[in-house]
Amino acid sequence: MRVAILGGTGDLGYGLAVRLAHAGVEVAIGSRDATRAAEAADRVREAADGTVSGAANAEAALGAEVVVVAVPFAAQAATLASIVDALDGQIVVDATVPLATAVGGKPTRTIGVWAGSAAQQAQEVVGDRARVVSALHTVSAASLGDLSHELDEDVLLCGDRKADKEAVAELIELVPGLRCVDVGRLELSRIVEQLTPLLISINIRHKAHAGIKITGLAAR
Amino acid sequence: MRVAILGGTGDLGYGLAVRLAHAGVEVAIGSRDATRAAEAADRVREAADGTVSGAANAEAALGAEVVVVAVPFAAQAATLASIVDALDGQIVVDATVPLATAVGGKPTRTIGVWAGSAAQQAQEVVGDRARVVSALHTVSAASLGDLSHELDEDVLLCGDRKADKEAVAELIELVPGLRCVDVGRLELSRIVEQLTPLLISINIRHKAHAGIKITGLAAR
Repeated sequence: MRVAILGGTGDLGYGLAVRLAHAGVEVAIGSRDATRAAEAADRVREAADGTVSGAANAEAALGAEVVVVAVPFAAQAATLASIVDALDGQIVVDATVPLATAVGGKPTRTIGVWAGSAAQQAQEVVGDRARVVSALHTVSAASLGDLSHELDEDVLLCGDRKADKEAVAELIELVPGLRCVDVGRLELSRIVEQLTPLLISINIRHKAHAGIKITGLAAR
Repeated sequence: MRVAILGGTGDLGYGLAVRLAHAGVEVAIGSRDATRAAEAADRVREAADGTVSGAANAEAALGAEVVVVAVPFAAQAATLASIVDALDGQIVVDATVPLATAVGGKPTRTIGVWAGSAAQQAQEVVGDRARVVSALHTVSAASLGDLSHELDEDVLLCGDRKADKEAVAELIELVPGLRCVDVGRLELSRIVEQLTPLLISINIRHKAHAGIKITGLAAR
């Protein structure tokens, strides 16, 4: 399985690339700048010793079964628009969060997204060329990027097709210590995306890299 | 310590009353209708064998150190306005959630609150007669009400004064299995209040009584 990570030069993209590469997944780091993508791929290989390449976003997406969008929200729509021709039925995993930092505000606040959520905006941009699943909003980039840190937390998934969420869960659960929980349709992402500023506020108060777990579910 | 629970005839109010009474806290159940409050107090005493009384809302609030608001959101502002004369420096714990059910919508959706959140609306109504802490949005009423169910989850607290959140944490943590986490100022409640519809969606999908836990915090 090959996964493209657009915004793989950022903290979340890097952390996810390290974990997936370490789990044996082939990773293509995407960036606007192919040189920066190649440099990021070098860094990931140093940390995780897997099959990792770097390329411009559209090239990274081409031939990937899953395309993860881990760019800042301000760049999300433009990034997706720039790769839409490379999409042909893939699953797009949107991990972006409409933090108020996109407009110079605080990371403990969000801005309203006309489509309802960042994930719904992503679906609007890619149209019928790909199906969006929203994920990875509550996992600390720092914890992901540090392989010596033992993960033990949940990843909340929103999407309109159960099979897509199952495929994303299968991929993400290759990372030891991450459990995926299907929380509902893509429109629910407007709630999950709010968890990032909540956890940022908790991190500031408690000097932590907080994550979340859903209690009360039957063990699988 | 005496705690008034307005809306103690509802599921969340009943569950909280049972747990607090069981933990040795004196509980005054409040309702618009004093007779219904007295009946609910009887039910709580049967389940938990503590010191529980029932009265009209304002009478229940009088002399309580903490006043919990567990009425449906549509009744929150009117309930608080009706007891404001009974408030004199207490802590008001707002547990209400602006679910779309208040206007005939789905329980997996919310409505926008002009003040920013239900908790901020509560603070607007009580003015300087009480200080609002927001809490208890993620704890399943059914799990609370069943003393044979072993709790193991977190309660997220929002409020503008640290001492108030500490007092509320001390009260809630009398219930075994509940840990309180200070997540920030009262305005953060707009995020925490969204967790209720998220958990309702999870409950529908997974036939569960889900709750949440914050991972990555230092143990106390």
